Amino acid sequence: MTEIETGIVARDNASLGDQIGARINELGKISETPEHLTRVFLTKEHRAAADLILSWMRAAGMRVHLDAIGNVCGRYEGERPGLPCLMLGSHYDTVRDAGKWDGPLGLITAISCVADLNKRGKRLPFAIEVTGFADEEGIRFASTLLGSRAVAGTFDQSVFGTRDRAGISMRDALTTFGLDPDHIGAAARARRELHAYLELHIEQGPVLEQENLPVGVVTAISGATRLAVSMTGMAGHAGTVPMALRRDALAGAAECIGAIEEFCRTDQGGLVGTVGYINAMPGATNVIPGRVSFTIDMRAASDAHRKMAVADIVRQIEKIAKRRGLALQIDVTHENRTVPCAPWLKAQVADAIAAEGFRVFELPSGAGHDGMAMIDIADVAMVFVRCRGGISHHPDEHVDIADADAGARVLLRLIENFRPRDAAG
Amino acid sequence: MTEIETGIVARDNASLGDQIGARINELGKISETPEHLTRVFLTKEHRAAADLILSWMRAAGMRVHLDAIGNVCGRYEGERPGLPCLMLGSHYDTVRDAGKWDGPLGLITAISCVADLNKRGKRLPFAIEVTGFADEEGIRFASTLLGSRAVAGTFDQSVFGTRDRAGISMRDALTTFGLDPDHIGAAARARRELHAYLELHIEQGPVLEQENLPVGVVTAISGATRLAVSMTGMAGHAGTVPMALRRDALAGAAECIGAIEEFCRTDQGGLVGTVGYINAMPGATNVIPGRVSFTIDMRAASDAHRKMAVADIVRQIEKIAKRRGLALQIDVTHENRTVPCAPWLKAQVADAIAAEGFRVFELPSGAGHDGMAMIDIADVAMVFVRCRGGISHHPDEHVDIADADAGARVLLRLIENFRPRDAAG
Repeated sequence: MTEIETGIVARDNASLGDQIGARINELGKISETPEHLTRVFLTKEHRAAADLILSWMRAAGMRVHLDAIGNVCGRYEGERPGLPCLMLGSHYDTVRDAGKWDGPLGLITAISCVADLNKRGKRLPFAIEVTGFADEEGIRFASTLLGSRAVAGTFDQSVFGTRDRAGISMRDALTTFGLDPDHIGAAARARRELHAYLELHIEQGPVLEQENLPVGVVTAISGATRLAVSMTGMAGHAGTVPMALRRDALAGAAECIGAIEEFCRTDQGGLVGTVGYINAMPGATNVIPGRVSFTIDMRAASDAHRKMAVADIVRQIEKIAKRRGLALQIDVTHENRTVPCAPWLKAQVADAIAAEGFRVFELPSGAGHDGMAMIDIADVAMVFVRCRGGISHHPDEHVDIADADAGARVLLRLIENFRPRDAAG
Repeated sequence: MTEIETGIVARDNASLGDQIGARINELGKISETPEHLTRVFLTKEHRAAADLILSWMRAAGMRVHLDAIGNVCGRYEGERPGLPCLMLGSHYDTVRDAGKWDGPLGLITAISCVADLNKRGKRLPFAIEVTGFADEEGIRFASTLLGSRAVAGTFDQSVFGTRDRAGISMRDALTTFGLDPDHIGAAARARRELHAYLELHIEQGPVLEQENLPVGVVTAISGATRLAVSMTGMAGHAGTVPMALRRDALAGAAECIGAIEEFCRTDQGGLVGTVGYINAMPGATNVIPGRVSFTIDMRAASDAHRKMAVADIVRQIEKIAKRRGLALQIDVTHENRTVPCAPWLKAQVADAIAAEGFRVFELPSGAGHDGMAMIDIADVAMVFVRCRGGISHHPDEHVDIADADAGARVLLRLIENFRPRDAAG
């Protein structure tokens, strides 16, 4: 909104960045509440956002439709009708109290690039499709990547029965929205229809800012392993049990947290490990904790690297527990494979970045993206755009217009120079 | 109850331990609920317990009364009436879901010792008084040592306005119980009336068990300092922020917990330090904690030692916070001075223990006791009795009858050989 108020609006002669910034603001107004941007799956805000995006797609010369799961789909034909496409996309749902850029930047940038081609009457030896995924965050039904899974043909119909906070099932929500749950399969695309899936997204981390770069080449969408750890010692009076006779579960957990941090910090391959949740019981100032639960989130740019790290950390935790006489339970609560970006596509992203005059910098995506589903039907690549302070999933999420413009110029060049895998050799 | 059921009851020819065990069980039946021993200040259970204890005191040849705060008071005259007394005592209130021994053991043992003297017609060159304090735990009005503070003349009348969970003020509860809040001062005793205050209590810790000893000499009631620490870094996505760019408040807190444990563990003077409470915010598996609060409880057998340790640990935490770029707030939330046991009294405790054939072993009391209040009008000493596994404030709290008997024999010998300070030289 500030950008609009300061006079930056979509004008015919505005830069791609200006146009993108104006549309980000316009889409960002479509929210459950005016104060806190929240736009979730199969709501009236979803419908309003879809209508707006479809209108932009139409204006960019695309043939459009809303697919069977509520994704917005636009197609810009190539030199002749019916060619396989380069698919561009991102999601247009949000978390609660979200920023405006996470998802919409990639979708709006793609539409702006197509609009630019269309304005110049430029047709390419392949079609371009832009897909706006209706649910990537999984806020309403606690199941992520619903939109892209439908497109990839991997939608799990068992989630139809899942209910939202208000008790509405996904099946009923789809019906109310005007979609037919029994025809969700119609959203699925075939591998032969796609040359590749390419997504531009804000980084959601501080690395590009640290590197002083507006854009970066994503190497992979990191897989993640989440563990739930429980250590049980012996509760006791904080005054009466000498240090040597204690079996303090929190002191044990603290040693584990230190070991996890040290292991990841000294890793050369970009491993990250996080203990985000901890609970010490009974949790009184004057009682030695008898039991502590904590979680571990481990991510790396390759599955082998992550699995090696998880195994090593589990061994360290087992040693710590044994030495301290603590009972230990470790459960894997979540495991996501790593999605590597295709080298042939990454090379084209790098070429476009270099041609725009920026240093080529590679980084993994620690956050999940729709490419994790799209990998099942297409090679995948991603372009990251710098966001201020690495802040995301927060109203302070921000991208400079100059960076949005840089991202758009890279994407446009990438599209115009795109060579399908066979041609790319 | 098990002891009673297995046939051990107070018999004329039973050991002191047997008699004490039977009375512990009898008193332990007076509880708010039959399943969970709970006996708090100014309730009908308080009244029933007081009546029972006063009857035991009377049977032991004491002149008895309930004082202005609800303490039970018994006096066994010396060789002539009106002599200053050796005061013995402990408390008869409990925590919720308590054990039977914490408090009552010292009180019942003292009565049994006087009963033994009385049976033998033995009078000493000083009086013996036994005081059962009505509120040491502070469960009902969240203010501890109410009974002993009244006796020491340090009762803080501002607590009269404090209300219990049901909204009843202490003033009203006193009145309902039949006591006059405006005459609480009548419970106060003068220094000249007491030679000393001597308390036998369960250890509430595992040290005597570890040392394979039934009894020990308490060196001091440790003072305690409690700190509330808050560390603030930067929350962030567990996948997108590289280790080197993190300001993880929980990793910082874990390092502090390790430093506290290491500092106390390597201390030669019995220092103990405990982090009993921790909260990491926002507390999600996939979010780097931006803020962590935790508590520190530090205790040592001397104020100087504890203060030195607290200062050192605060310096270490400040260094950790600075190195990690974390904002730090540390508040002292509680500070209790150390109450040293009087050397001349400790020596007499040690003599009595040695004379009963046990190795003399000294240990500090990490838990608080009524001596913390009584120090204001008398020199203080304590005898600890071993409890199983160091467990206290729990239904599993247990003292072997043989250990209760050993404690009683030590206390009886101590009384019979007691020399007031002047005489003790």
